[in-house]
Amino acid sequence: MQDNAKKPQRHAERMARKQRVMQARIARADKEQGVLLVLTGPGKGKSSSGFGMLARALGHGMKVGVVQFIKGRRETGEEAFFRRQPGVSYHVMGEGFTWDTQNRERDIQAAEAAWEVALGMIRDPSFNLVLLDELNIALRYEYLDLDRVLDDLEARPDMQHVVVTGRYAPQPLIDLADTVTEMRVVKHAFKEQGIKAQKGVEL
Amino acid sequence: MQDNAKKPQRHAERMARKQRVMQARIARADKEQGVLLVLTGPGKGKSSSGFGMLARALGHGMKVGVVQFIKGRRETGEEAFFRRQPGVSYHVMGEGFTWDTQNRERDIQAAEAAWEVALGMIRDPSFNLVLLDELNIALRYEYLDLDRVLDDLEARPDMQHVVVTGRYAPQPLIDLADTVTEMRVVKHAFKEQGIKAQKGVEL
Repeated sequence: MQDNAKKPQRHAERMARKQRVMQARIARADKEQGVLLVLTGPGKGKSSSGFGMLARALGHGMKVGVVQFIKGRRETGEEAFFRRQPGVSYHVMGEGFTWDTQNRERDIQAAEAAWEVALGMIRDPSFNLVLLDELNIALRYEYLDLDRVLDDLEARPDMQHVVVTGRYAPQPLIDLADTVTEMRVVKHAFKEQGIKAQKGVEL
Repeated sequence: MQDNAKKPQRHAERMARKQRVMQARIARADKEQGVLLVLTGPGKGKSSSGFGMLARALGHGMKVGVVQFIKGRRETGEEAFFRRQPGVSYHVMGEGFTWDTQNRERDIQAAEAAWEVALGMIRDPSFNLVLLDELNIALRYEYLDLDRVLDDLEARPDMQHVVVTGRYAPQPLIDLADTVTEMRVVKHAFKEQGIKAQKGVEL
């Protein structure tokens, strides 16, 4: 968890705004609102869950966007599948880069470019749902400025859903979120037994 | 959790078999194997995660099946979406029934019919992944015999993945599973504040 008290005044202002927003929502409880959902924790299923919500939204005829903030760490079945669906904008961090490892400056540059793409989506009310896959990792590594990201998320259109995945969700993001689920490992037999999990599906 | 000791000998036999299977897997650790994955707990994202894995498998060109064991309790964005994908067999429990509530016999009959459909998939090696959505609920209500379900899951083709979702996974199923994730509620702002969540997307 990142330091919640680093910028206490800004945090307090954000929380006060959040409270006003929630009170306004209660006052018009029948009106539908966009939700900020965070999926975190060490268990399997965070990104899968985000992609399942994407599928659900597409089933409702919604327009959706995906930005994947960690390239190469996940397998690409989702990418292959969702890129061929109509109504999906899909961006992977570092597209167009020739990646070499251990280059922090390049990672930061790629993360910032990815955030610009995300901004294009979360500022556009025609997007009903935006999945920011593994954003928590980019925040954890401090590739992106947390306050900037929170301000941008907060300023998104009223009706837009945003799903953020990845371990180590920073506490200020949890504070801002409407719904937060932590995936807990009950059992991971392959890992426990030192066996590689199925490559293709990564269960 | 269901009573693990109800049929202790059968359970012991199953666990001994499971151990032999795991040892055989360790002996040929390079070989890929089907995984039994259970997604349980009270948090959001269990079914979504299963559907995300479905999307991933489809991205790999796999053949997949879905049986939804609880009709009418979930919204149907996934159903609309995945029914139109090639390579997907989709069954909802109670299809063809005229439902009336509070009829346990009819529920059991529908669950058994749904399990027969599931059996058709989990006995067919051409299915790479089968999602048994909310099966845990059907087990919880004892619409299906747990031992029978476990035996059938255990007897499936070596390479086939099965994903089981729903709260209250029974302990013997957890024992049999390779990987188990529990979704924990960190925060559910709408619920806490008495506000209905977005209908369409159910975040």
